Amino acid sequence: MTRVGILGGGQLARMMALAGAPLGLHFRVLDVSPEACAAQFAPLIVADYTDREALARFAEQVDVVTFDFENVPAESAQFLAERLPVFPNPKALAIAQDRLHEKTLFRELGLGTPAFAAVDSLADLRHACAEIGFPCVLKTRRLGYDGKGQYRLKSEADIEPAFAELGRVPLILEAFVHFRREVSVVAVRSRLGAFSAYPLTQNWHADGILSASLAPAPHAERLAARAFAAAQKLADQLNYVGVFALELFDIGDDQFLVNEMAPRVHNSGHWTQEGALTSQFANHLRAVVGLPLGSTELLAPTVMLNWVGTLPAREPVLAYRRGYFHDYGKSPRAGRKVGHANIVADNLPQLADALASLGQALDRETQIAPVLQALRS
Amino acid sequence: MTRVGILGGGQLARMMALAGAPLGLHFRVLDVSPEACAAQFAPLIVADYTDREALARFAEQVDVVTFDFENVPAESAQFLAERLPVFPNPKALAIAQDRLHEKTLFRELGLGTPAFAAVDSLADLRHACAEIGFPCVLKTRRLGYDGKGQYRLKSEADIEPAFAELGRVPLILEAFVHFRREVSVVAVRSRLGAFSAYPLTQNWHADGILSASLAPAPHAERLAARAFAAAQKLADQLNYVGVFALELFDIGDDQFLVNEMAPRVHNSGHWTQEGALTSQFANHLRAVVGLPLGSTELLAPTVMLNWVGTLPAREPVLAYRRGYFHDYGKSPRAGRKVGHANIVADNLPQLADALASLGQALDRETQIAPVLQALRS
Ligand SMILES: Nc1ncnc2c1ncn2[C@@H]1O[C@H](COP(=O)(O)OP(=O)(O)O)[C@@H](O)[C@H]1O
Ligand SMILES: Nc1ncnc2c1ncn2[C@@H]1O[C@H](COP(=O)(O)OP(=O)(O)O)[C@@H](O)[C@H]1O
Ligand SMILES: [Mg+2]
Ligand SMILES: [Mg+2]
Repeated sequence: MTRVGILGGGQLARMMALAGAPLGLHFRVLDVSPEACAAQFAPLIVADYTDREALARFAEQVDVVTFDFENVPAESAQFLAERLPVFPNPKALAIAQDRLHEKTLFRELGLGTPAFAAVDSLADLRHACAEIGFPCVLKTRRLGYDGKGQYRLKSEADIEPAFAELGRVPLILEAFVHFRREVSVVAVRSRLGAFSAYPLTQNWHADGILSASLAPAPHAERLAARAFAAAQKLADQLNYVGVFALELFDIGDDQFLVNEMAPRVHNSGHWTQEGALTSQFANHLRAVVGLPLGSTELLAPTVMLNWVGTLPAREPVLAYRRGYFHDYGKSPRAGRKVGHANIVADNLPQLADALASLGQALDRETQIAPVLQALRS
Repeated sequence: MTRVGILGGGQLARMMALAGAPLGLHFRVLDVSPEACAAQFAPLIVADYTDREALARFAEQVDVVTFDFENVPAESAQFLAERLPVFPNPKALAIAQDRLHEKTLFRELGLGTPAFAAVDSLADLRHACAEIGFPCVLKTRRLGYDGKGQYRLKSEADIEPAFAELGRVPLILEAFVHFRREVSVVAVRSRLGAFSAYPLTQNWHADGILSASLAPAPHAERLAARAFAAAQKLADQLNYVGVFALELFDIGDDQFLVNEMAPRVHNSGHWTQEGALTSQFANHLRAVVGLPLGSTELLAPTVMLNWVGTLPAREPVLAYRRGYFHDYGKSPRAGRKVGHANIVADNLPQLADALASLGQALDRETQIAPVLQALRS
């Protein structure tokens, strides 16, 4: 019996527990909130991520630890790693938690990334803007997600308001990239160093939150090969174990810039649940507990639609022959990810047709429009 | 939020809870044992199925009730049905629980079934044997499973020992059928009467316990059409809601005799988890809570291998590209179903090859041999 401890009890932990049950794994989740939605399917310990006593107890109840929440303090991950295996390892986690550290590593590995500079004062920001130019994006180095903790600067006039809003914590300034599209690599690396990537995924955001994903990303063969090589280089360097995502800006001519790394299963990999031979959740667990990795092959082209704020009716999705609904069991709240649907089809034209009908039935035409355009391109 | 109550907390309830989570369903399980393996993923009430107080409490905590265990006393199902929706309905359950009632119904509906007679005394048995002839099978009318509660009679000399072994409860005597093979229909019927059947499945037993299933059953097109019609007739007659299985003896020339009906998700439908567009577990729940039924289409040819007694190593299954392991989280015990694997392939020759390699790797050649033979026929 392998007991897997998960730090963080959101939808990622929930879907890990559901995917791990058939492997015979037992789960225990630690979260700050008694409402954590993973608790519906795994025993929950409610505690702060810095509570050493709770962490020590947690460590005694499980055989291996992994993460739903990437912003667990590095010291807590380290504290656990002294007691039992922790995957990804605390150093990889610490690097991926900090935009400055991760971008520095990308650069060291020769992976293209937008021009960037550390910003710790208003003077730093003025200096960085002069160097990088406008438009540019100021971001908190840590704890940003779903576009939170960011400020876009168009001209010098934005410098003071930007710093006033974000300047209480360490920052990074990045060149704004006029990308053609956003894509991500979702990949898995085993304890023994085996590496496997899912087909490249194209992503769309709305209000900074992932809105839809399409796999495979159309017209991306050469881009994908280069992106997979980058992901493998990075994972090897970090001795990374588990699933991770690499968010990329496609800048044309099969070139990309690396935006960020997520050291966990990723929203842009949710399509793998019904669109790939092994889901990212099952594959993450296989890696973490030392089982053979599963195939990352595409089963059939798939679109993932995120449900943000509230869930739509389930019926239109479920009435479609290859439509799958994923409800996270959370209460609705503006900007909150509460579920998603995976729409699978035998081929791309059928996928476009299914999506068009669903967009109408769900009154979600705006969400679906850019995906339809890509599918029909 | 729909809260689904399941009577019985074995692997069927466990796999229902796992399949229902993405639909946003909440579960509660009632079982006589605190060790019930579904309890790892759903809150458990430990109580006897006849405990009216516990049943009343259970009824208050859920919105709809269904079954993992078909032998819940009919009176308990009725008690619940007076309080909330129960699917399948108590009358359907009561008929399927009793071999004499179900075979009588099969006959009334014009579905072929082996010759049979009720046996309540040694005199009855003598009389029935004279009428039906040898070989024949004496079975308890109720509570038999995995071949338990059966006695095969070859000649008059077996009459007294057979009755001595089983005669304490109501019995049925059946003609022994020299079938060509065993197949099953796994089908689902919605609250509104929509009906859909999975591809016909061929089944093999060892020591009375299901050992392997193959979907689709080879060379069975016309047989399947006739079998689906029978299943639909039966389900309509019972106003059945949910998934059920109909076990058939293929007697050649596209003819069959109906052996028995299982009023629940069924072991011969486990292959649907990765071999069909919707699993039997998800489809049962969709039917029971009133969501649209999912497609019962084949995704790809699949063999289900049952793990009885102990689990084999997971690695050889997981190392195969389309190999899926299902561990029920039970402790090992002779004759106990503790898990299964679904082996999926792009086509039949690949399925045969994958199965042959696995048989060697797992040292399960005996289990796999008859399936291989059918695949290569
Ligand atoms: N340097 C940039 N240039 C252009 N767009 C950007 C840049 N950085 C972020 N974005 C946009 O904002 C989104 C969210 O930013 P990201 O750095 O990925 O933060 P988060 O952790 O919130 O996902 C990106 O997916 C992209 O659409
Ligand atoms: N009348 C019969 N003729 C031939 N074989 C039978 C007969 N009844 C049962 N069997 C064999 O025994 C197995 C188990 O019997 P069944 O009636 O299905 O009981 P259970 O409820 O235990 O599955 C069947 O799958 C079949 O292989
Ligand atoms: Mg991002
Ligand atoms: Mg049977």
